[in-house]
This record gives sequence, C-alpha cells and structure tokens, in this order.
Amino acid sequence: MKLLKFPSIMKMPKFKLPKVAKKRTVKVGLPPGTLVYTGEVRDEPVRTTYMIYDAEHYEEGEIKSIEELNSHVDKPEVTWINVDGIHDTGIIESIGNAFKLHPSILEDIVDTEQRPRMEDFDDYIFVTLKMLVYKEKNREVTSEHISLILGPNYLITFQERPGDIFDIIRGRIRTGKGRIRQSGDDYLAYALIDTVIDQYYIILERIGEVVEEIEEELMSRPKIETLQQIYYLKREMIFLRKSVWPLREVIGGLDRSDSALIKQETGRFFRDVYDHTIQAIDMVETYRDMLSGMLDLYLSSISNRMNEVMKVLTIIATIFIPLTFIAGVYGMNFLNMPELRWEYGYYLIWLVMLIITMLMVIYFKRKRWL
Amino acid sequence: MKLLKFPSIMKMPKFKLPKVAKKRTVKVGLPPGTLVYTGEVRDEPVRTTYMIYDAEHYEEGEIKSIEELNSHVDKPEVTWINVDGIHDTGIIESIGNAFKLHPSILEDIVDTEQRPRMEDFDDYIFVTLKMLVYKEKNREVTSEHISLILGPNYLITFQERPGDIFDIIRGRIRTGKGRIRQSGDDYLAYALIDTVIDQYYIILERIGEVVEEIEEELMSRPKIETLQQIYYLKREMIFLRKSVWPLREVIGGLDRSDSALIKQETGRFFRDVYDHTIQAIDMVETYRDMLSGMLDLYLSSISNRMNEVMKVLTIIATIFIPLTFIAGVYGMNFLNMPELRWEYGYYLIWLVMLIITMLMVIYFKRKRWL
Amino acid sequence: MKLLKFPSIMKMPKFKLPKVAKKRTVKVGLPPGTLVYTGEVRDEPVRTTYMIYDAEHYEEGEIKSIEELNSHVDKPEVTWINVDGIHDTGIIESIGNAFKLHPSILEDIVDTEQRPRMEDFDDYIFVTLKMLVYKEKNREVTSEHISLILGPNYLITFQERPGDIFDIIRGRIRTGKGRIRQSGDDYLAYALIDTVIDQYYIILERIGEVVEEIEEELMSRPKIETLQQIYYLKREMIFLRKSVWPLREVIGGLDRSDSALIKQETGRFFRDVYDHTIQAIDMVETYRDMLSGMLDLYLSSISNRMNEVMKVLTIIATIFIPLTFIAGVYGMNFLNMPELRWEYGYYLIWLVMLIITMLMVIYFKRKRWL
Amino acid sequence: MKLLKFPSIMKMPKFKLPKVAKKRTVKVGLPPGTLVYTGEVRDEPVRTTYMIYDAEHYEEGEIKSIEELNSHVDKPEVTWINVDGIHDTGIIESIGNAFKLHPSILEDIVDTEQRPRMEDFDDYIFVTLKMLVYKEKNREVTSEHISLILGPNYLITFQERPGDIFDIIRGRIRTGKGRIRQSGDDYLAYALIDTVIDQYYIILERIGEVVEEIEEELMSRPKIETLQQIYYLKREMIFLRKSVWPLREVIGGLDRSDSALIKQETGRFFRDVYDHTIQAIDMVETYRDMLSGMLDLYLSSISNRMNEVMKVLTIIATIFIPLTFIAGVYGMNFLNMPELRWEYGYYLIWLVMLIITMLMVIYFKRKRWL
Amino acid sequence: MKLLKFPSIMKMPKFKLPKVAKKRTVKVGLPPGTLVYTGEVRDEPVRTTYMIYDAEHYEEGEIKSIEELNSHVDKPEVTWINVDGIHDTGIIESIGNAFKLHPSILEDIVDTEQRPRMEDFDDYIFVTLKMLVYKEKNREVTSEHISLILGPNYLITFQERPGDIFDIIRGRIRTGKGRIRQSGDDYLAYALIDTVIDQYYIILERIGEVVEEIEEELMSRPKIETLQQIYYLKREMIFLRKSVWPLREVIGGLDRSDSALIKQETGRFFRDVYDHTIQAIDMVETYRDMLSGMLDLYLSSISNRMNEVMKVLTIIATIFIPLTFIAGVYGMNFLNMPELRWEYGYYLIWLVMLIITMLMVIYFKRKRWL
Repeated sequence: MKLLKFPSIMKMPKFKLPKVAKKRTVKVGLPPGTLVYTGEVRDEPVRTTYMIYDAEHYEEGEIKSIEELNSHVDKPEVTWINVDGIHDTGIIESIGNAFKLHPSILEDIVDTEQRPRMEDFDDYIFVTLKMLVYKEKNREVTSEHISLILGPNYLITFQERPGDIFDIIRGRIRTGKGRIRQSGDDYLAYALIDTVIDQYYIILERIGEVVEEIEEELMSRPKIETLQQIYYLKREMIFLRKSVWPLREVIGGLDRSDSALIKQETGRFFRDVYDHTIQAIDMVETYRDMLSGMLDLYLSSISNRMNEVMKVLTIIATIFIPLTFIAGVYGMNFLNMPELRWEYGYYLIWLVMLIITMLMVIYFKRKRWL
Repeated sequence: MKLLKFPSIMKMPKFKLPKVAKKRTVKVGLPPGTLVYTGEVRDEPVRTTYMIYDAEHYEEGEIKSIEELNSHVDKPEVTWINVDGIHDTGIIESIGNAFKLHPSILEDIVDTEQRPRMEDFDDYIFVTLKMLVYKEKNREVTSEHISLILGPNYLITFQERPGDIFDIIRGRIRTGKGRIRQSGDDYLAYALIDTVIDQYYIILERIGEVVEEIEEELMSRPKIETLQQIYYLKREMIFLRKSVWPLREVIGGLDRSDSALIKQETGRFFRDVYDHTIQAIDMVETYRDMLSGMLDLYLSSISNRMNEVMKVLTIIATIFIPLTFIAGVYGMNFLNMPELRWEYGYYLIWLVMLIITMLMVIYFKRKRWL
Repeated sequence: MKLLKFPSIMKMPKFKLPKVAKKRTVKVGLPPGTLVYTGEVRDEPVRTTYMIYDAEHYEEGEIKSIEELNSHVDKPEVTWINVDGIHDTGIIESIGNAFKLHPSILEDIVDTEQRPRMEDFDDYIFVTLKMLVYKEKNREVTSEHISLILGPNYLITFQERPGDIFDIIRGRIRTGKGRIRQSGDDYLAYALIDTVIDQYYIILERIGEVVEEIEEELMSRPKIETLQQIYYLKREMIFLRKSVWPLREVIGGLDRSDSALIKQETGRFFRDVYDHTIQAIDMVETYRDMLSGMLDLYLSSISNRMNEVMKVLTIIATIFIPLTFIAGVYGMNFLNMPELRWEYGYYLIWLVMLIITMLMVIYFKRKRWL
Repeated sequence: MKLLKFPSIMKMPKFKLPKVAKKRTVKVGLPPGTLVYTGEVRDEPVRTTYMIYDAEHYEEGEIKSIEELNSHVDKPEVTWINVDGIHDTGIIESIGNAFKLHPSILEDIVDTEQRPRMEDFDDYIFVTLKMLVYKEKNREVTSEHISLILGPNYLITFQERPGDIFDIIRGRIRTGKGRIRQSGDDYLAYALIDTVIDQYYIILERIGEVVEEIEEELMSRPKIETLQQIYYLKREMIFLRKSVWPLREVIGGLDRSDSALIKQETGRFFRDVYDHTIQAIDMVETYRDMLSGMLDLYLSSISNRMNEVMKVLTIIATIFIPLTFIAGVYGMNFLNMPELRWEYGYYLIWLVMLIITMLMVIYFKRKRWL
Repeated sequence: MKLLKFPSIMKMPKFKLPKVAKKRTVKVGLPPGTLVYTGEVRDEPVRTTYMIYDAEHYEEGEIKSIEELNSHVDKPEVTWINVDGIHDTGIIESIGNAFKLHPSILEDIVDTEQRPRMEDFDDYIFVTLKMLVYKEKNREVTSEHISLILGPNYLITFQERPGDIFDIIRGRIRTGKGRIRQSGDDYLAYALIDTVIDQYYIILERIGEVVEEIEEELMSRPKIETLQQIYYLKREMIFLRKSVWPLREVIGGLDRSDSALIKQETGRFFRDVYDHTIQAIDMVETYRDMLSGMLDLYLSSISNRMNEVMKVLTIIATIFIPLTFIAGVYGMNFLNMPELRWEYGYYLIWLVMLIITMLMVIYFKRKRWL
C-alpha cells in the first residue's frame, strides 16, 4: 500500500536526527571529568590555528605545540585560537591545562550532546552552542557542536568539523572590513555567534517556503502525501524548537551579563543577537501554529469528502433499491398475478416508478443533498 | 473539484504575509553594523521634513541637508523631524552621525523585519513598531516599519512609506487643537504611538465583523466555504497575534520607564496606550477562542450530517433488501415450486412483505432513527 | 434544514455581546484627552445625587450645580456623590475640574469599552469595573461601565444607567444597618464593589444550572440541539471569562494597596472580595472544563451511534445480498439449467440459503456485532 | 435507548457536587460582616468541647457558656476548643467576641462555600480547609468546611458536622502516644491538618483503582459504558482538582510562615504536609493525563471498528452486486437472447462469475482488506 | 476480538507502576513521626557497610552495631555509610539518633512513596531521589527509593534493595581512579547522584529506539497494534515525566545551594548534573510531542483508509445498482411488454447499460475518485 511512503521529491531540509540518548550512555559509569568524545567517528588530525590582530596589523598560522599557545596569549592584541575537531581529547585536555580551564568545561566541549549553555567563570566566559548548517546540495541540515571560551584578550573556539562558516569572519579580519579590527575579543565572540544564529534563518526561510508550498497544495488539491508532509514538518519543528529555545537563555545570559569581559558597547550588539533569537523562536512557533491549522483543515476536508462520497452512494441506492424491488415483484412467477395481464400494466408500473423517483429527488432537494 | 477554492467575495482584511525569513537572509555574512534595507524596492527619493513648535508659534519645512538639522535641535522648542522612506541608507547614516546614535539602532531602523522593541539609551529613547494599515479599497492590510527616537527636545520618526496616518497629528499641531502645542516632545511621541495603536482597532473591528458573519452563516447554513473562511481567519490571527504581543513589552517599557525624557504627566498617557494594547491582545485571543469553538461546531455538524445521511441509507436499504430477496425467491424458475400455484400466493406474499416492513419501521422507531 | 437553529426555549442567560472594536474606532484620530462617550445613545439628563453621613446623621439630595460640590467635600463626614449617566461629557468634565482629576481618568470614565482597571494617584484612587446585571424577565445579561473615585473623605461613583443595584447600599446608609455608618468612605467603596461582584455570582449560578441541565440531557437523550447549547455556552464563557479575569488584578491591587486612603481594617475586607473574585474565576474555569468534557462525550456518542447504524446496515446487507444473488441465479432463463428440473431443487435451495444465513449469524456473533 | 445510562454497579467514589453558586447568592445584598451559614440545614444544637493538656496531664469536657472560655485560655497549657456545627451563627459570634477575632474571619467560618485559605493576623493564624471524607458504605465523598484558629496557646477548630476524623487525634492526646503531649498548639494544628490531607489520599487511592479497572476493561473489551465511566471520572477529577490546588497555597503559606506562633521544629512538619499536598496534586494530574489518553484510545478503537464494519460490508457488496447484475441480465425475458439457448450457457455464466469473484478477492488481498 | 490485546513481542521497557495511593494510606491515622516502611515486603536483614578513605588510603567493612558508627565519624577522612534495605525501621531510627537527624527525615527515608526532594539543614543536607533501573533481561524498569545525608565529612546513603549501581563508585574508590579519592564527601555525593541520573538516560535511550521503531512501522504498514503501542508508550511517558520533573528542583537546589557543605569546585559539577537533568526532561517532552504527532497521523490514516473503502463501495454500487434495476425491469413478466419482442431489444439494452456505465466512470473521474 502506498499510504505512507514519502514522496521522492520532498524538497524540505532534512534534519539528521541525533540519537540523543544512545550517545550519552557511552559515558555511563565513567568517572566524571573523563573526556569522552560523543560525536561521529573521525580520522583526520585536529587542526589548531590562530589569528592575532589589532587595528594596525594581523597575523595567522597553525599552532603546532601547546607551548606555543601561552606565548601568544600574553600579547596585548586579540588572539583567536580555533580548534577544528574535538575528537582528540588529548589536545583538548592540554589546551585546558594551558588556559587553566575548569575540567567540567572540557567535558562539555567534547560532549556533542551537551545542551547549549553559557557560564561566567570570573576569568573567562564559556559558551556552547549548536550550529545548524543547511547544505543545499543534499538538502540536509547538520548539527555541529560549537564552544567558545572568551578570556580577557583571547578567544578560543572549538568546532566539531572543519567548516567554512567562520571563514566569513576570518575574511573580515584579513581585509579589516567593518569594525572588527578596531574592537576587542568580545566583539569577535559576538561576530561568531551572530554568524551561527544567521544560519538558523537560512533553515527557517527554507522551511517557510515548504510550509507555503504545502499550504497552497492543501488549498488547491489535497493529497494523501500532503498529510505526510505536514506530519514530517511538524516533527522537524519539534527538533528545531528544541535547538532554538535554549539559545534564548544562552544569548540572554550574555546580553544581561555584567562581566568585565564584555564591554558595554559590545553588550549592545549581544542585545541585537538576542532579538534575532527571539524572532527565530517566534517563527518556529508561528510555523507550528500554521501546521496545526493545516492538519485541522486537512482532516476536515477528509470528513467533507467522505460526506460527499456517502451522499452519492445514498442518493443512488435510495432511488434504485425500491425501484429494483418493484421490478422484482413483477418478475415473480405466481400463476395468479392479475396486474401482469392488465393491458397497460407495464406502462403503469413505469409511471409508478417515475413518481417514486420524483418524490425521492424532491426529498433530497429539501435535504440540500442535491 | 471545488472543495478548497476560496470564495471570490471574501470580505475580510487580507494580510500581506511578510516573507520573514527570506529577507533576513540578505544580511547573512555581512559585518554587523552594515545598514541593509530589507523592505520592498523603492525608487522615490527620501523626503525629510521638520516641524518646530511651542505653545505660541510653529514652523515646518523640508530639510535639504544634514547640516541644517543640528541648527534646529539647539532651539528650546520641540523639533519633530520626520523621514519618509528608509531605503536610502546613506541618509539614515548621516542622521545617525548628526545625532550620535548607536550604530545598532541605525540597523534596526532600516531592517523592516526587526521585531517591535524599545530601548532606553540615557540620551534618547529608541522605539520601533509595526504600523498595520487597513485599506478599505482592496481590503488589504499593509505592515509598515516605524521607528522613533525621542531626545531631550527633539523627536525623529522614520517611516517606510510616505503615509497619511501621521497627518492627523500634523493637523493638530498646525491648528493648535488639543494639548499637543502646550506639551513636550514626549507627548508628541505618545500622540504618534497612540495613532499607530488605533489602526490596530480598525483592523480588529473588521475582523470582528467577519467573525460574526461567519458565525451567523455557520448557525443558519454551514457550507464548505465556511470551513475555509474559519481556517483563513485563524491563519490571519496567527500573524496579527505575532504583531500585537510584542507591543505589550514595548509600550509597557515606556509606561514603566523612569527616564527623565518622559515627564510624569505624559507617563500617565502611556499607561493609557498600554491599556489599549492589552485590550487589543484580549480581542485577538477572544477571536482565536471563538474561531476554535466554531471549528469544533463545524466538525460536529459534519458528523451529525454524515450520521443523518447514513440513517436514510440504512433505513431504505434495510427495508427493501429483504423484500427484494423475497421477490427474487419467487422469481426463480424451479419447476416444482408449490407456492407459485396457490390461488392467493401472490396476495399472501404481499402480506408477508407488509408485515416485515412494519416490523422494520417499529424497530427504527424504537431506535429513534425515525 | 433544522440543523443549526437554536431552540426557542433556551433558558440560559444571554449576553449582549459588546461590539468592542466598533465603538473604539469612534475615537480614532481625535486628540487624546477628548472625552468621547462610547456607549449606547441616551437622551435622559444626567442626574447627580449626594449622600453625606457619619455615625450620627445623614442627608441626601440632588446636586444641581457644580459649585455646590466643593462645599460638600470640605466637611468631615463621608460624602458620596453618584452620577447616573456618563453620556453628558460636559458634566463629567466639570466634576473633573472641581476635584482636579487627571484628564486621562475622565476619558476612562466615559469610555464604556475601557478594560477594568485601578490606579493609585496619591490624592485619590481610581477604579473602573464592569457591572454585569442579569434580568430574569428577558434572561439578558447587560454590562454596565462603573467608575469609582475614592478621595480622602469623599467617594464619587459614575454609572452608565440609573440602576437599582446600589440602592441596597443606600438603604443601609439610611437605616444605619451594618457597620457602614460607623466606617469611612473606603468601607463604602468596598461595599459598592462587593455588591458588583455579587452580581457575577447570580449569573454564574444561572449558568451552573444550565450546565447541569444540559449534562442531564446529554446523559439521557442527546439531541442535535444539545450540541448547539454546548457551543453557545462555551461562547458565553469566553465573554464571561474576559470580564472576570481583569477583576483579579483590579481587586488584588486594592487588596495589596498601601495607600493611606484605605484603612487597614477595611483592607481586610478587600481581601475578602479578592477571594470571591478568585472563586468566580475558579467557577468559570470549572464550567469551561465541564463543557469541554461534554463536547467530547457528545462527539463520542455520535461516533458510537454511527457505528451502530453502520452495523445494522452491514448485517442486513451482508446476509441478504448473497441470498438475493442465489435467487437471481435461479431466476435466469437458460434453457439448460438442470437444477431447475430437480424434484426438490427448490427445497434444497432454501436449505442452502438457511445454512448461509446461519454461518453469517455465527460470524457476526463472534465479531460481537449481534 | 441505553446509550447513556450509567451502569448500576459503578464502584467509583461519587462526589456530592456542591451547588457553588446557588448558596453564595443567599448572601447577595446583605451587609458585609453579616454571618450567614451557607451549608445544609441542620437542627441539632452546636456542641463545643475542650481539651486542655500538657506533658503531665490532660482534661476534657463540654463548654456550656462563653464565659467559661476565657478562663481556660489564660492557663499555660495547650487549650483545644472544638466547635461541632457552624449553623448557629450566634455561638460563632460570641466566640469571635471572646477571642477578639476579625469579623471577616467569622464570615469565612460559617460560609461553607469559602475557598481554602490561610491568613496570618499577628495574634493568631486563621486557616480554612475542605475536608473530603469518603464513606465506603454508600461510596460517597462528602465535603466538609473546616476552620482553625491558632493562637499563642490555644487552638479553636470549627467543623460543619460532628465527625470522627479528629477522634484519632483526641485518642492520641488521651493516651499520650506520639509527641503530641510534649508539643505546643502549633503541633496540634499540624496533626489535625495532616489528618485532613490524609483523607485525600484515601479518595485518590479509590480513584486510582477505578482508573486501573477501566483501563483494563478498555484493553480487553471496550464497551459503551467505558466511555461514560471515563467521562464521569474526568468530571470528578475537575472537582477534586479544584479542591486540591488551593491547598498548595494554604499549606505552602504555613510552611513559609515566619509567624512566632509556629515554632521552627513544627515548621519542618508543615514542610512535610506541603510535600504530601504536592504529591496529591501530582496524582490528580497523572490521573487526568491517563484519562485523556484513555479517551483517545477509546475513540481510535471506535474508528478502527467502524473501519472493520465498513470493510466487511464493502467486500460482500462489491463481490455480489456485479454477480447479481449478471444473474439479472439472464433473467430478462427478451425473446431474442441467443446465450440462453447455448448448450453450456449456464455453466459458462458460472465460470464468468467465478472469475469475477476471484479477481475481486485478489484485489482485496492487495489492498490488505482480507 | 483481538482489537486490544497487546502484541506478545513488545520490546519496550515496562514500568512497574507503583500503586501510589494504596501505600500511602497505610500511614493514615498514625501519629506523625512514626516510621512506616511503605515498600514491598522484604525478609533479608539490613546490611550496613562503610568506606573510609582519603587520598592515601581507604578501608571498608560492615558495621555491626550502631556504637561503631560514631567512632568513624570523628575521623578527618571521608566516611561513607551505606544502608542496604530500609524495611527495618529500628536500624534507621538508631542511625537517626546517632547522627541527630530530624525525625521527619527518617520518615522520608523509609517512605518509598516520598517525592524526590532536597532540604538543607545547617548541619547536613538531605536528598531523596528515585533511582530507575532498567533490567535488560525482563525489560522491566524498577524504581528504587534512595536517600542521601551529606554531613561535614560523612555521607550516609539508604537504598531500598542491595543494588549494584553504586558498585561503580566503590570500584573507583578502591582503585583510586578519577579524582574521587582526592575530593571530599560532597564530591562523593555528586558522583552517586550522577550515577543515578545516568540510569535515566539508559531508559530514555531504550524508549527512543522504540519510538523510532513505531514511527517506522507507522510509515510503512500501520497496524491496529501500532495504536496500542503508541497509547502504551504515552502512558509510560506520564510516569517517567512524573519521576523526572521533580529532579529539576532537587538538583537545581543542590546547584544553587550556598551551604558550606558543598565546596565551590564541587558545585560546578552539580551544575553539570543539573544540565543533564534538564536534557532528560527535554527528551521526555520531545518523545511526548512525537507520540502525539504519531497518534494524529495514525488517526488521519484511518480516516483516509475509511475514505478509500467507502469510495470502492460507492463506485461499485453506484454503477451496478442502476444496471441491476434495468435488468430487473426486463425480467418482469407483464404480458404486454413490447420491447421484449423487438428483434434487437436485448442488444439495445446492453448498449444502454454500457452508456450508463461510461457516464458514471466519467463522473467519477471528474470527482477524482478514480
């Protein structure tokens, strides 16, 4: 039966549903503080790069040894250290030691199932987020675990996969476009988080288009597939919602933070990102409401059609069943059936049947079934 | 199939649904602080006008250059600068520089997708709102992005399109009607926001009428189109709700503000606008509840009618199917069928059929189907 | 079709649904502070009466001119000024001037669509409420806009229509029953508000009775009208709820108020009214929950009955359709049909049909359809 | 029709639904402070008893006159005065005078419709509760209005009916079991309230059993009565919920109270009762959720069965209607029908009919209807 | 009828539903402070063991007498006393006396129905939790009542059953793996609670798998059993939710606690457990949402199939009923039926019937039923 097969030309973004629970259980029984990478298995080596810049100049390069790190941090410029890949827990641990990070932070950095959260240690602020990236090619949304550590003049970022999303920011630093080179590492953190949130809008736009397509389809020619698409989209919204809501708390925490690490003028920008987050939540909720309304409409139109089908059956059956009965009566073979021998019996019976039909039609007209 | 075509004479206000996500994504990847106009493409030049007034006199005119602006602001009277059109980001930027506005504010002024919000910088208060305008002619609701900057003795307003809504206020200033000429720029801000909120009531009134019409239709003669109208209205309410709810926070913020820019006596008026906002929210929620109830009633009446259709079919079929069977039996051509040769066999069979019919009717009466 | 006509003997209280939006739009475009009466058109002149009393004596009379007012207020006794009719905005305005009331208050007094609210100006407390009055005669609930201004030793009340609800209190003052003559104007305000809230209970009692009647009907003999009554009651509850909920805030504000105008011992009584308000809200919510449950039960019993109807049809059709087919077969006129010439063919065919019927009956018994 | 008659062997506790609104309206129009008993009419005289105890000794007896009361209260021991019956407002009033209670408290004591509440006057704490008592005999839950006044060394309790619930506590005082004789009147208040809350658990246990029975029935053999039982239980839960929720506030208020009347070590016990209240609320909500799930399951299984019924009808009708048509064709009496005269026409037609049947069966098998 | 029998191969974890109310009522009427064990009846003796450790060494053993206890606690090392079995209230009481615990705590320790809670006495912190353990073998989830008392340098734990969950921690202490030997008793408490929470993830993982299996089944071949599985899972979620939600408050209380008993660095770890709890709640809510969506999809697909069944019936019946009528007409035995004697009457009638059939098919095509 084809009832519940998905159409092959589904154009909506597909979420790779994370098997949340499965991965968490890897850690059961291990002493807390043990770094366990819970993401997909990866082979490539972890790459650690740095960018050091102020208004006048910038330099960038790859960090080969942990010792190198400390030498960079003491400088007055902004130092951005980016770690591509969190599957090599040894590297994470040595970075943690070098910057004297709390061990539980390191756990959160490598735990890809960690919920978005932000925490203000006095010396540094720790933020962890989900970056949703939509690939047009295979229409797939991938979720990536991102962590930021914002210190007095350094920013360390951890990415699950080497990705190109942050390259926009790197480009701006290189060319000195915008205010990024004039500003501190808090502005850099803002710019990166803003880029992450922007990715949500791309997905929401795509979903918005699909919602509108489905609605149009529902309006003009509702099909069995429409129901499945609504169901599937509702399901996606459950997961998207779960990603977006915790952001409210995280970004809101940064906005309201009175940490000395975030300068007041940068705080204003975090306010902006917070607003964008609220707007993203609004959109998710709006789509959910629309999908619920569409489901109601779909179900009602099914009921309506069933009603229509039933009416056709009832009209035809109600008219012809009595007529067939009459025909049956005069098909009986009793020897003594006077009507059969009447001259105009046959014509009379047609008249009777016509009258019955007309009465039925009038009855249906009054019931507004015709 | 006509099932889901909208009736051509839909009289309810139509919202031009903003494609929220699409426009936001224009900005993805640009450095924060870049002014990007996200509204419809516009060609006409931006027009900047001013009104300067106190209790005794007033003057008005068009501002040709930015330098002019500063000269006006130093005067002790109230200065109202109105910018019609926000698509020329250059002009916005030079105004921002002249009044030393925070760059993120300028972004919000030109971003037509920005959520309503208010923020109190110490030197000025920034408010941004959606103005919903209902045009009777084509029954269309258009959304316009409005921003206000309330300084110590000046008010700057930004409108997306040159519109006539604010002309009411201009008229009052010119004629000196009401208390507007006796009051400061905070009262002017109040008068403008009050005018914006009033527009919501016009739309809500129109929707209220449509809700009542649909309800009446549902009561007297529910049609397939009624369902679609309910769906469509529910959908409109989702968008209206999304516009109205954030106002609560914005106007509430102005009401509770302890900024020196809002005099205490004007604060009382903002309390009033806040109350109107709450009332508008109440109305939106009431309509939503009513529409849900109407959908339930519609679905129940479909079920009821289906039931009625089924009953008619069942009664007719249940009575005539056994009779037809009996007629069929005596239409058989067996040579040895004694009943056929009985003198009164035919009349007897009619009697049997009458008795069966009567038993059926009694059965249906007892079941209350007749 | 009779499907959705309301039964003529509807015994529940009917709410005159206020056309909220329509009236509000009268004010659109007028300068704030303009007094606009938004209620029904009225012709009779506004009547202003006073009662002055303390523990020993009382006097009452009609106030002819505004100048009279001030002379009364300076006395140490409690002065209650009652204004019957708010459609003459001139009178309201002159009272406002005499007592130096904030202009926005005057607006709220004459705006019959104003939401219930209370505000504490330091010199006086302003309260506005909806009084719902149930007239047994035509079973109609009318809503009246009531405002109170509680000053240091005076209370001004504004009523939309000259009504008899407050006469109970007047009687108590005249006869000196209860503690009213021993107490201040805050106690008078309490007594009046308590009387207003009591009216809600009368309506809730009536609705409670109707809910119980409908439930009983639903239990014994559910009809098509039951559905409509449930719908209609749900709709009434939406409006009642909208009236009751804001009271929570208003009365709660009076209860928690630390204004010097409300003496501590009177405050305790406001606590009591607050409790009654909460209880009224509880009752509204309980009725809503019950109505939802009743709708579910109604829908389920429709489904159940449809099921029953279908079963009867299916049993009859399933038994007789095959039998009719068999009869049809032996009604065919083929020349070469050996069975027709068998001696006991006819009896055999009856046997076959009996066996088929019995098998069917057994099948239905096993399916528990019989 | 038997559709909605309740089964005679309903084993669940029946709530005597209080006619909330009706009783309250008795008081409409009376001056506040008038004591009006709103419960059932009672004839028996009010009985007032006392118990005086400390760790060493105890005495008990009946109080005949109000003057006696004061002499008891001055003693250093714990004095517990219990009033059985609140319909004699004169007695309540004289107690109120003797202990200088606020008049509004007396009103709450005799108003059986009063919502549970607690209030801390500095000299004493007032608590009013609903005691739900389940009588196994007639399976009826009765609601009783209980009030407590906790003074420095006395506790006054008011009961609507002379009841045996408090006898457990009296027994403990007499025998000196537990810590009650060693503790103050606050502990006595705790012990009484704890006893009241325990009664809720007895009802909840009974309901829990019924819920499980119904679920089992729903699983094995869903009947029409199952639906009614679910509806009835849901309705009971609405009332139980209304009784349980306000307890949260009342007991929570006692728990958090910093009144000197409640010693710190007793406060810990109130914490415990609070926990039990929360747990009772949890259980009510759990049962509500389960009942909603059961209603869904019931409705779905109705749909499923309707589907099954329809399939049987469709299969039988779809197979035999075409066959009957064929038989009908060859039952026609046209003179010129060559097939009729074919030697094996009759056998051929059986073959055709067999092939049609087989095709139908294959079609249904593919549709998975068979 | 097989409608509501559960499939035998149900692979989801089964919760042993605690009969909450029944057990609580055991205590009704007993003086507060009486220790009543409310769990299952157990025979084996209670076993009390200890572990004493610091960074350098550790010792462990069984405690035979209560006097022994005190000698251990005075030492500077961490002392962990574990009580396996809470059914012997005498032992609990003597522990309570030895450590001067508040009597209400002892009640909570032995009351297996006690809701999770935490309370900060100044000298010690009391925590009680539910440990859910999933046994793969019989796929059963058992709930165990766990209590912890965290003193300055000792930790006492109470388990309902001797279990192996805490053995992981014992192993770590013995081998000195992780930081546990270097840390205080607060860290030990954290490690134990973390282990308890981890067990929830194992159950959630299992449920997640079942949810996905059911969804897949629903997509490819929805069956009657699918509905039951959805219902059953929803029911499990109600109970799981009831267990998980109170944890939020308990663990959150430990996280925010400013007790001196929890060192700041350990507090950070409690933050982590809190996060895991929130995530578990998130997952429970996500599964609930998914199950609701699945129920909607199931019901819609039933409606869809009913529609399909109805269409087949209607098409067949609507085509053949009129044809059968026509055949019936010419099967009548009237003597005077001219058509019967026409040369090509029979062929003509076939033509008529063919035309009718074609018209019907066209009609259905237009209705999109074919």
